[in-house]
Amino acid sequence: MRDFKERLKRLPEADPSSAEAAAARQARLTKPPGSLGRLEALAQWLAAWQARHPPRLERVRVAVFAGNHGVVTRGVSAYPAEVTVQMVANFRAGGAAINQLARAAGAELVVVPLELDRPTADFTAAPAMSESELRAALEAGAGAVEAGLDLLCVGEMGIGNTTVAAALAAGLFGGSGADWVGRGTGVDDAGLARKAAAVDAALALHGAALADPLEALRRIGGRELAAIAGAVLRARELRIPVVLDGFVATAAAAVWRKADAAALDHCAAGHCSAEAGHKRLLQQLGLAPILDLGMRLGEASGAAVAIGILRAAVAAHTGMATFEEAGVSDKS
Amino acid sequence: MRDFKERLKRLPEADPSSAEAAAARQARLTKPPGSLGRLEALAQWLAAWQARHPPRLERVRVAVFAGNHGVVTRGVSAYPAEVTVQMVANFRAGGAAINQLARAAGAELVVVPLELDRPTADFTAAPAMSESELRAALEAGAGAVEAGLDLLCVGEMGIGNTTVAAALAAGLFGGSGADWVGRGTGVDDAGLARKAAAVDAALALHGAALADPLEALRRIGGRELAAIAGAVLRARELRIPVVLDGFVATAAAAVWRKADAAALDHCAAGHCSAEAGHKRLLQQLGLAPILDLGMRLGEASGAAVAIGILRAAVAAHTGMATFEEAGVSDKS
Repeated sequence: MRDFKERLKRLPEADPSSAEAAAARQARLTKPPGSLGRLEALAQWLAAWQARHPPRLERVRVAVFAGNHGVVTRGVSAYPAEVTVQMVANFRAGGAAINQLARAAGAELVVVPLELDRPTADFTAAPAMSESELRAALEAGAGAVEAGLDLLCVGEMGIGNTTVAAALAAGLFGGSGADWVGRGTGVDDAGLARKAAAVDAALALHGAALADPLEALRRIGGRELAAIAGAVLRARELRIPVVLDGFVATAAAAVWRKADAAALDHCAAGHCSAEAGHKRLLQQLGLAPILDLGMRLGEASGAAVAIGILRAAVAAHTGMATFEEAGVSDKS
Repeated sequence: MRDFKERLKRLPEADPSSAEAAAARQARLTKPPGSLGRLEALAQWLAAWQARHPPRLERVRVAVFAGNHGVVTRGVSAYPAEVTVQMVANFRAGGAAINQLARAAGAELVVVPLELDRPTADFTAAPAMSESELRAALEAGAGAVEAGLDLLCVGEMGIGNTTVAAALAAGLFGGSGADWVGRGTGVDDAGLARKAAAVDAALALHGAALADPLEALRRIGGRELAAIAGAVLRARELRIPVVLDGFVATAAAAVWRKADAAALDHCAAGHCSAEAGHKRLLQQLGLAPILDLGMRLGEASGAAVAIGILRAAVAAHTGMATFEEAGVSDKS
């Protein structure tokens, strides 16, 4: 995977002149300085990563990646594994939450199923993926991103994948299974204990090999997580700002952050999930979530709801009058 | 003001059958139970207060009330008092933040200036309003609400009115000026001390008279706060759900809450303002804010941004397929 490590060394940075133009305009708009709070910071962040002032949100894409996981045989989910493929059909038919939320947010929805009939290996017994499987999933993610997008939201569907996210978070940042697992779609106490045990077994099996972030992704990740990582990296290379969804999407993106401290500067956390490990992971990454609505669905649902906040930020930034234009007295 | 006290005794309640219909539908939608978090509760709350299932958000109104305050002569604001009328002109011309945010949220904006050339009396020296002035402002607020609205957002503009809100919050719920004042549009430490001193002077002057909530509103409130109170009460009588904006709007609505523990059941807190007293006041009222974005502009701006969250809630609730419709396996 040396080519990915080379790409990490050549990541583009945000455009300082667009960020400065946004800050200068904010200071002249008819409001007390800073009074739009996070909306001001988000407008500036979009300008910086779009390398454009004013920023815009015309082409917004929500990408949902789906995968299946060998570890579900360990009894880590409240739902049977066939739900992954059923939910992909539901996405295609327009009946899932993300269909409604993406449409309400004025975003295009792209769904990418990843070999759903071929689950990854159970990572408590073997690496989840071969190197070629990992590479294929990373490339499938990159393929869902194209130049010209103004914003990308990334999310997932995959029965069992909060256990995968917990394993990957623990593998990247330390801690035990109990520190990172949560109830996911709704497991009981015994299911929660099985999740923690599966993570601990994976950490024990793969051990020191997890020090390499891409190797951790291969051994204890999953296809949809690798695809999210691939999409996040490609978006950075194309200078497209990204909104991460919940625990699973954030754990996937965190692979790059572990490899390079600035690798997720183009990413915002759409929300803080009710899944226990997400808050801990956001704190680890220094990401402040835009929303905190107790959501824990995945499917990019939290990221899609956050699009509305970004649209509000852009609307205020681009549409407001300046003190001069409006004839309003500035601070006395 | 006996008529208002009589109206408080006859407030309509939420419709339990619409709430039950919403809860029953949520349980059948293709998602783990509860996984849309606050969105599920908000859809149910809208259904209950609209007395309709499914709920809808077709006619959404943002009402902004503007007033001027005698207490500004005490040096409590960073901006001169003429900014109130200038900002109303800015609202009319479409150049303010709320114009952009209401449009982005698909809401109609109604601006109601209240005798801006006749500020209330300085409440550190006399009651802010006469009884007839209070009544006129309450009625002006009610006049901005009409049957058929699906949602009402209330906010304000008034140089000096975070001091008024702090005084009213202290008068209703106890505490000193220092407990409730904040930096508003951006006062320095000396300005903050002047705000606290003005509140303390008002509390000392009006004393035991503040035990009657409407009398507190008359003595240490302001016209735009009274108008918000009038609008919130009228909305309740028409069973229109309300989203409160920040500290000033919440303090105005709190007058009814002090008089009747259930009087604000039709109200949601759109956001938690960065203005210090707002978080304290929300806790006092038991209201959990939908958003927490560090906003502190007023103008109903936080409430308007929250409309997008409500739209997401309604879109998911009404548009999603059920497990049966989608052929998705339910919990194992």
